[in-house]
Amino acid sequence: MKLQITQLNSRTLNFEYNVKQAKSILKNANEDVMTIFPELALSGSPLYETVLYDNVSKQALASAESLCNERKSCIVGMPLHNGNEKLNALLFIVKGEVIDAATKRNLTAFDRSFAKGNGFETARYENETIAFGFETDFEEFAAKGEKVDVVICVANNVFEVNKQQETINKFIPAVRKMACKFVYVNRCGAEGQFVFNGGSFVLNEKGNLCDELPLFEEETKIVDTNRLKLFTQSPKAKIEKMYHAVILGLRDYFIKNNISKAVLGLSGGIDSALVAKLAVDAIGKENVTGVLMPSEYSTDHSVKDALDLVNNLQIKHFIIPIKPLYDTALSSLNEVFANTQRGLAEENIQARLRCMVLMGVANKTGALLLNTSNKSEAAAGYGTLYGDTSGGIGLIGDMYKKDVWEMAKWLNRNGVVIPENSITKAPSAELSYGQKDSDSLPEYSLLDEILTLHLEGKMDREQILVKGYDSQTVDKVLHLLKINEWKRHQCCPCIKLSSHTFGIDRLMPVS
Amino acid sequence: MKLQITQLNSRTLNFEYNVKQAKSILKNANEDVMTIFPELALSGSPLYETVLYDNVSKQALASAESLCNERKSCIVGMPLHNGNEKLNALLFIVKGEVIDAATKRNLTAFDRSFAKGNGFETARYENETIAFGFETDFEEFAAKGEKVDVVICVANNVFEVNKQQETINKFIPAVRKMACKFVYVNRCGAEGQFVFNGGSFVLNEKGNLCDELPLFEEETKIVDTNRLKLFTQSPKAKIEKMYHAVILGLRDYFIKNNISKAVLGLSGGIDSALVAKLAVDAIGKENVTGVLMPSEYSTDHSVKDALDLVNNLQIKHFIIPIKPLYDTALSSLNEVFANTQRGLAEENIQARLRCMVLMGVANKTGALLLNTSNKSEAAAGYGTLYGDTSGGIGLIGDMYKKDVWEMAKWLNRNGVVIPENSITKAPSAELSYGQKDSDSLPEYSLLDEILTLHLEGKMDREQILVKGYDSQTVDKVLHLLKINEWKRHQCCPCIKLSSHTFGIDRLMPVS
Repeated sequence: MKLQITQLNSRTLNFEYNVKQAKSILKNANEDVMTIFPELALSGSPLYETVLYDNVSKQALASAESLCNERKSCIVGMPLHNGNEKLNALLFIVKGEVIDAATKRNLTAFDRSFAKGNGFETARYENETIAFGFETDFEEFAAKGEKVDVVICVANNVFEVNKQQETINKFIPAVRKMACKFVYVNRCGAEGQFVFNGGSFVLNEKGNLCDELPLFEEETKIVDTNRLKLFTQSPKAKIEKMYHAVILGLRDYFIKNNISKAVLGLSGGIDSALVAKLAVDAIGKENVTGVLMPSEYSTDHSVKDALDLVNNLQIKHFIIPIKPLYDTALSSLNEVFANTQRGLAEENIQARLRCMVLMGVANKTGALLLNTSNKSEAAAGYGTLYGDTSGGIGLIGDMYKKDVWEMAKWLNRNGVVIPENSITKAPSAELSYGQKDSDSLPEYSLLDEILTLHLEGKMDREQILVKGYDSQTVDKVLHLLKINEWKRHQCCPCIKLSSHTFGIDRLMPVS
Repeated sequence: MKLQITQLNSRTLNFEYNVKQAKSILKNANEDVMTIFPELALSGSPLYETVLYDNVSKQALASAESLCNERKSCIVGMPLHNGNEKLNALLFIVKGEVIDAATKRNLTAFDRSFAKGNGFETARYENETIAFGFETDFEEFAAKGEKVDVVICVANNVFEVNKQQETINKFIPAVRKMACKFVYVNRCGAEGQFVFNGGSFVLNEKGNLCDELPLFEEETKIVDTNRLKLFTQSPKAKIEKMYHAVILGLRDYFIKNNISKAVLGLSGGIDSALVAKLAVDAIGKENVTGVLMPSEYSTDHSVKDALDLVNNLQIKHFIIPIKPLYDTALSSLNEVFANTQRGLAEENIQARLRCMVLMGVANKTGALLLNTSNKSEAAAGYGTLYGDTSGGIGLIGDMYKKDVWEMAKWLNRNGVVIPENSITKAPSAELSYGQKDSDSLPEYSLLDEILTLHLEGKMDREQILVKGYDSQTVDKVLHLLKINEWKRHQCCPCIKLSSHTFGIDRLMPVS
């Protein structure tokens, strides 16, 4: 049979847009082609609590009816009313008639407001038996041992840097055992923090890869399940995949929230430099404004490095020194601060004044503030709440400092865009004289290794010590991680890139 | 049999403390008494991802062994290793020997890192059959129709203002059908945003209430299941329950996070006045500092009302006018703001400067900033991010404005504590001359009604219109709610009081 794999980039609850996209694909399809859309293609996703409202499933139903009017064959996902229950459903439509529906049984966090459905269904089509359903329900279906010709598995699979190959590999043993063809259709595009990476694929009866659609691109491709040929992947490097995920994530965040302009603070450091470059690539240099906010603690090269970046990227910029604000703040707080030692309170004030300035620029110019915190800082709580943790969306919040450096170097591979000095100099928050990140934190190379073992590797203190790390350093890292949980409850959401994103995959007790 | 119901207030992952509490209760128990501790009593809860670390289940096991050394009988909850799986378990211990264990099968959001267990178990004890397990697994067990004498159901039930009676009523039909005694043991105390309200109870074979432990108090009570007598409840008013929940929530937040001092901004308005009073009741007047930050847009009565409150509560205060800061901010931002109309950007700057001042006081004095936003504001996005939405924990973030007024009046029932003028005057953010909340929002009485229908009642636009509300107002409220989802992703967490708390029960797509 001829299947048209369609990794659609739906817009959440924008039924009109989604149906229009889906219909134009059906219109162009021949009569003998069955189009496969991803999970919740008609409504977009994640839907969370929105599905509890009757109008959502009503609109979904109307959209499905409109799709049927094309009189074509397709499998399409949408929220479905069933009495009082709302189900995550997949309609099986043949020449405009709904002949069957599968409903999702193994629900995920995205499906938190759906009721539990029935799992995979089978249907006869062109003299073959098709099993169709959701990725999370496949394991249960495979365990039944039913004989089918083709399995169609739709998904809502979120990008994680090492996941695509794991996803493919996960299905191979069951497909071999079932000796069936296997078609996996994943959505593409981003919603909030989540990037759906496409990468739909086809396996033959032996579990060999016979097709893979591109990552990060909305695409449609017709596959004839009776003429499958082996497919050779051209794998991308880790940093390259992360880059494309961030670009798609930011671009869709702006498109789907109807925002065009971004603003960010430029410290001359590597983090803000990388974010500025990513923003330029995602939404265009004409839409990005950098704000330099030097203080008395800023070094000369900070301003120079930031200006070099501005020149390289050709973006607008403002220079707004914060000394007058800082002096006024200290004088306003004199009654409280008098006769105390200068410390964290004074450092945080500078970061918060910068946030106030940036939000002032953002509010006045209708721009969104981009957050520039990285994962290592977020882990260690090395940031000021309502200061540099602020912003509408974080671009590098799921990247360790080592990844930040690596991506900056990769982006400079064909010529310097990010100033070399921003890459090579020792990281500093510049909130007091001569301050270096390494005064408060272990060296990033060490910090990142310990964090990776603990966060992604789920190793506890003893297990990390066995690896040979110094106990004082390990204790310091784990302590910083723990005492800053509360802070991460209010940090800017960031684009998810790893298997262990703060605020999504790591939820911790506050106390 | 004699059961000692113990609604323990465990501390998260503080095994030493929890075991000490549990052992002291066992020490005082007679040999013929079986003590019932709540879900996860040895570890505290919610545990979220912490259970993925081996040291957590190791410590739990050591704690259980220590408990067994008392040679008493008890049922106690803890995380349990089973190969690579971590289970939410309930040990059945008779005279210091573990004779059985139930593992939780129907997992909740708190259990997100636990693997699925087996549900209820039954055991023979004193010639009777006891079924024991978790609240969420009871329905499945009841459906089996097994004949048992006593059901013991442990819970981790979070306070919601109308929930206690619902919880009791929910079990009655099944208990009648099973004709068994039913003992429900809920934990007490708070963790982060969640208040566990105790209120453990006992039903006889007819489903009649035979005992109910106090709400909001850690308590132990011996019940002889062979001598049950009918029990008459003394129900508390809604506002009184909310009050006690906030007090317990805030007190435990401070105790468990090892914080003693609080700071908050006092505007002279009702919200901050109520929060100040609640803080004084929870952590003592000597630990609460109010900061008045008048601006050129503040009315005379604002300062007077705030000072009246300070006097009534006898708390420390600072007066830090923000005009010098605001003027400096406008002058710093002149290049960006020149030739634009004064608007939201300028209003937000004031709120953000106040946040900077409050956090300065908090950081310098080692205090926690209390958030003073209410649920109506949060719904409508009527607040400034990194401004008045800031704070470590919100006390009234799950209370509509109508509840704020009602609680203030209730607290004044024996004499004025919260200045009458704060209660009676028209709410205003005072960010520009003559500003009133009602300039931007529908009247709170109307706003709160529409929000309640939509949020708690899950009514969509059409269903609300059928109730007779004006379509313009309904559209405005639903629009404000939608466009401010992103803002609520970064708001200060608040103590959960209702069935529909922002950030917990309502998660929405950003786009």
